[in-house]
Amino acid sequence: MRHFLSIDDLSMDQIETVLDWTKSIESGWQYCRSMNNKCISCFFAEPSTRTRFSFERAMHWLGGRVVTAADASTSSSLRKGESIKDTIRTLGQYSDAIVMRHPDPNWPEVAREYSRVPVINAGSGSGEHPTQALLDLHTIRQKWGKVGGLKVMLSGDMTNGRTVHSLIGLLHMYGCKIFYCPAKIVHGSSVEYLGLPEKYLRAQPCTMVEVECANDLLKDMDVIYMTRIQTERMATDGDMDIRYFAIDEKNVDLIKDEAAILHPLPRGKEISPLIDDDPRADYHERQVRNGLYVRTALLDYILYGNPIIAP
Amino acid sequence: MRHFLSIDDLSMDQIETVLDWTKSIESGWQYCRSMNNKCISCFFAEPSTRTRFSFERAMHWLGGRVVTAADASTSSSLRKGESIKDTIRTLGQYSDAIVMRHPDPNWPEVAREYSRVPVINAGSGSGEHPTQALLDLHTIRQKWGKVGGLKVMLSGDMTNGRTVHSLIGLLHMYGCKIFYCPAKIVHGSSVEYLGLPEKYLRAQPCTMVEVECANDLLKDMDVIYMTRIQTERMATDGDMDIRYFAIDEKNVDLIKDEAAILHPLPRGKEISPLIDDDPRADYHERQVRNGLYVRTALLDYILYGNPIIAP
Amino acid sequence: MRHFLSIDDLSMDQIETVLDWTKSIESGWQYCRSMNNKCISCFFAEPSTRTRFSFERAMHWLGGRVVTAADASTSSSLRKGESIKDTIRTLGQYSDAIVMRHPDPNWPEVAREYSRVPVINAGSGSGEHPTQALLDLHTIRQKWGKVGGLKVMLSGDMTNGRTVHSLIGLLHMYGCKIFYCPAKIVHGSSVEYLGLPEKYLRAQPCTMVEVECANDLLKDMDVIYMTRIQTERMATDGDMDIRYFAIDEKNVDLIKDEAAILHPLPRGKEISPLIDDDPRADYHERQVRNGLYVRTALLDYILYGNPIIAP
Repeated sequence: MRHFLSIDDLSMDQIETVLDWTKSIESGWQYCRSMNNKCISCFFAEPSTRTRFSFERAMHWLGGRVVTAADASTSSSLRKGESIKDTIRTLGQYSDAIVMRHPDPNWPEVAREYSRVPVINAGSGSGEHPTQALLDLHTIRQKWGKVGGLKVMLSGDMTNGRTVHSLIGLLHMYGCKIFYCPAKIVHGSSVEYLGLPEKYLRAQPCTMVEVECANDLLKDMDVIYMTRIQTERMATDGDMDIRYFAIDEKNVDLIKDEAAILHPLPRGKEISPLIDDDPRADYHERQVRNGLYVRTALLDYILYGNPIIAP
Repeated sequence: MRHFLSIDDLSMDQIETVLDWTKSIESGWQYCRSMNNKCISCFFAEPSTRTRFSFERAMHWLGGRVVTAADASTSSSLRKGESIKDTIRTLGQYSDAIVMRHPDPNWPEVAREYSRVPVINAGSGSGEHPTQALLDLHTIRQKWGKVGGLKVMLSGDMTNGRTVHSLIGLLHMYGCKIFYCPAKIVHGSSVEYLGLPEKYLRAQPCTMVEVECANDLLKDMDVIYMTRIQTERMATDGDMDIRYFAIDEKNVDLIKDEAAILHPLPRGKEISPLIDDDPRADYHERQVRNGLYVRTALLDYILYGNPIIAP
Repeated sequence: MRHFLSIDDLSMDQIETVLDWTKSIESGWQYCRSMNNKCISCFFAEPSTRTRFSFERAMHWLGGRVVTAADASTSSSLRKGESIKDTIRTLGQYSDAIVMRHPDPNWPEVAREYSRVPVINAGSGSGEHPTQALLDLHTIRQKWGKVGGLKVMLSGDMTNGRTVHSLIGLLHMYGCKIFYCPAKIVHGSSVEYLGLPEKYLRAQPCTMVEVECANDLLKDMDVIYMTRIQTERMATDGDMDIRYFAIDEKNVDLIKDEAAILHPLPRGKEISPLIDDDPRADYHERQVRNGLYVRTALLDYILYGNPIIAP
């Protein structure tokens, strides 16, 4: 049985297999597998648009079925106090795989211990979001034809942003140069960085660059990966003075012509809608659409384990 | 690409085509199209029973698939502040058409500008509800065998009632005589009518009749169209004294034997349950059921563009 | 038309038919019926994990379709004040059967009077939960090879626990000896038992045993059926001192080796997770899984009325 709970759960070989299938699905979307007897459970205890819709659409395309709790914090037995362990064990009795999102960053370890079916992490609080990282990698390679050696800037909430936590694992595996620019909270005269938790720091070669310098970096970057400030994960009493790097019509032209501007979405004000039609802005079409293809390939890989052959 | 965002988006010819298909689907519900590869997104940021269930059932009957956010205000990225533009663009990456309801009356124009797939308006706040108008028209014609020349009374909340805003467009197109009876809010000695916003007033021949006279009108009406007072759309501090015309066992017999009593539902107290079994009460069976048939035809028209031929 | 609104709606013969089909489905899960044109409505106005997921998975396995309101209290027209009668009549226009959960214990009688399609009670507030009772019966018979004559202990919230209300009907029909141990609320020096409402007391042979004695009973029991205290159904201002029998690693060995420990789930503290791997603990695997098989058989029985023959 094959879980995908952390980006570390797949080897580079396995990732390459999934991304190969992704390419084949992309180019032959008219063929689909007939998974009539397969059903996945989507169990989301935090909001989602892209992740849930793309997983469900993927399963439908594969000919399978889906049972969903889109608002599991209110509509499932979580509301009556059921534990994650009991929930996971229950879902495994009714489905061939579980796709789950929950605010507790530790739920994946409970799933790993107790689930009798494969579980895919669709977001674990401020922990990980490994399928987002897979689709980000695929998008980067589509744009550049390669991944290794690229210079990637990560910007925004490095503390609570689960997408960067997973993505860093992949970027490191493929040998990218990572520059990360944490947002900061200004408390009067002191500053608190929304930096990367130690557990997500990979061995090397990481370079820490502060927010103020971000504009200077742009001309060298091959990939600019922007993220939202996750204010809903911060204990706060009143407004905070949060400062972060943003891209808009004024600084976008500092960026290379071939670069990819990515964002896992939803966005706040870190990317101005005025640059949405810029050819470097890949967050709206390519990256979102790749979520569908990558998750289709991943579900197929986890549920079947052998590639679709087009007729 | 063909949106159905406003009642003005379909010409009379196109409406007749959809209603012809509706009749054919009604009489041959056992045949269905095999839309295995098609999937719609249902995205509802306001409550719905009839509209969402009938759209989803319709898509299932056509052999297609559905991905749904039934409570999108809490379970989707809207909750994290995502814009309608970003939401629409995302949904279009995963589905062949979007069926959307949202409280902002201006969302359809955002959809028109940014969507890459057809979008169907399933309710735009206090704006429009064009698929309801289509099924109302179909129900009226079923009852009378025609639409032109009929006398139609519209009663209730003309300000916030999106169903009447769309229906008036059709009634005008087909040459009905419209009598509308707005509810009113009594503030001490002054009265505020819940009248029709100017943008929904069609050229002519409209006659404004006040609530107090409604009973006198009944004997001449071919269609009585009742609507709920949309208190949830009113800024209010405390109880309001709202007065509106209602039908109950006392005045129902003033209505013609052949007339249709319609209501988009849900209802408040404007129609007494005591008349539910009256043969003129078409809101519970015929009108609700027609929602399924009309929406099936509409989805088929928008997704395929040519009619189902029964085997 | 065949409703399953109360445990009294099926005769012993009909129950045996459904449980016979259940066994056949269990052993041949790879065969499924092709219910392409059938669709059920799942309408849940209270939280659910097991009941809803297993009904939907069952319908998918049968090849049918599902339209769902998982959080109907907020996402359906109930939110706008629609009555249960109007809701039931509407759902019946769009689906071949309705599976409904709602906090009002009287909704099943409204459904019985007004629905034009079969309705299955998936929970009626503190009233009944008859499909849970069916799966409990099936689980007991699987364990013991028979039901008649078994000694069954029911423990927990007998007042608000809808699962025991339905189960008692079956246990009585099959001639079990029932021992029920209500939880109690201590108010200073007085005690209020969460006892069985009179309407669910069956003629005989029931024996009332108080909570304090539960440990002494264990050695004689063939089935131990634990239930959660339904605090959400109690009018309360502040904390209550509720005392109830619990099973944990200290008293579990007082139970017979062959006994079944059951729980409809979700659980509170009445069963310690420390005994989850005990061979007598059937609530996590066998009982949960049986919910899927029994509900598949029931849907097939209600929608088709004749058994699936494996090819």
